[in-house]
Parts: sequence; C-alpha cells; structure tokens
Amino acid sequence: MIDMQDFEKVELKVGKVLSVEDHPNADKLMVMRVDVGEEQPRILVVGLKGHYANEELEGKLIVVVTNLEPVRLRGVESRGMLLAAQEGDNVVVLTLDRPIAPGSPVL
Amino acid sequence: MIDMQDFEKVELKVGKVLSVEDHPNADKLMVMRVDVGEEQPRILVVGLKGHYANEELEGKLIVVVTNLEPVRLRGVESRGMLLAAQEGDNVVVLTLDRPIAPGSPVL
Repeated sequence: MIDMQDFEKVELKVGKVLSVEDHPNADKLMVMRVDVGEEQPRILVVGLKGHYANEELEGKLIVVVTNLEPVRLRGVESRGMLLAAQEGDNVVVLTLDRPIAPGSPVL
Repeated sequence: MIDMQDFEKVELKVGKVLSVEDHPNADKLMVMRVDVGEEQPRILVVGLKGHYANEELEGKLIVVVTNLEPVRLRGVESRGMLLAAQEGDNVVVLTLDRPIAPGSPVL
C-alpha cells in the first residue's frame, strides 16, 4: 500500500506523438518525438515493435512519465516512459478518451 | 526526478467500469463499481460530475491506481483512484487504445 504522497512523486503528463522512427541499433525499439507541452519535444525510446506500426502511433495522445531519470537504450537517450498495459503478448498503449492539450497533467 | 523503483511502487491496472451511480451525499461525486481483475469489483468514488454522464462511463476501460490506501469520501469508501487528465475545466479520463483484459498491469 502507498499513500498519496508516494503517488504524487510520479509526474504523469499527456503527450502527443509527433513522429516515430525505427531505432538505429535495436530491432524491437522505436524512437519517438513527443510533445509534452514543453518548449522542445522529448525523445522517447519505446518497445512497441510488433504491437504497433510506426504510422499508427503518429498523432496519438499518450501518457508519459516525465520525471524519470533519463536512460540510454542502445545508444539513444530516452527522456520519459510511455505507459502501456500488457496481457501476455497483447500490449496496448494508454490514451485519452477525448482531445486534450499535450502537457496536461494526469492525476 | 525519480527512479524506476519509485515508479514501480505505484500499482496501475486496467479497470472496466461495470456501473456508475450518483453519490448519495455529494453532488459532484459518482460511485463506480470497477472490475480490476479481482474476485470482487472495487468501489471507486470519482469526481467526474459535469464532465461525464454516468452512462457514458459504463463499459469503458479506465486506468486505476490499485494500491492506494482506501479513503472515505462523504461516507463512501473508495478503494482505488481513476486516472484522468485535466486542462482547466476540461477533464478527460485515461483509457486504452485497444481492448485488453481488466486487471492487466500498466507499465
């Protein structure tokens, strides 16, 4: 069990996927540019190959953990983590039920 | 900034809304029964009045924080928190991009 303070440490924001490319050095990874309401888009490295085509993700509203320490994945720095649900081989991204501005906080 | 351990303390699961009723003692609250993959549905108290009609939420896949300490809101115990994004007066629930089983972990 956790309390609200533990939950509030995690910064979740709406992101809008601007572009998706194959990772240059990893078959299962993609590199996304995502608008999270900041001056510059964030680069995210995500493991959705085989679950989504690159084009399917472009323009989609997603949910991003924006205050995780950056991690370098096969040579590309990821500045956030996209949230998705997993049930065996089925991986499904979280999205928004209606339009809302990129950068909107999730709580 | 947080690390993965901080993030992993928060248990997020897919929920399916089974039913939604007005809260008996609070104009702005609803009481939901939500399948989060457990034997019994969870009761959640949510503040979506004015943003969603009760019927609109029924059957929807949502995202629930399932390991928060229960809180009593105007006499009804809430055993989880639904996630939504907020931009001024616009409140939009998180949902899933494709069908997936209730109880599926989000990560």
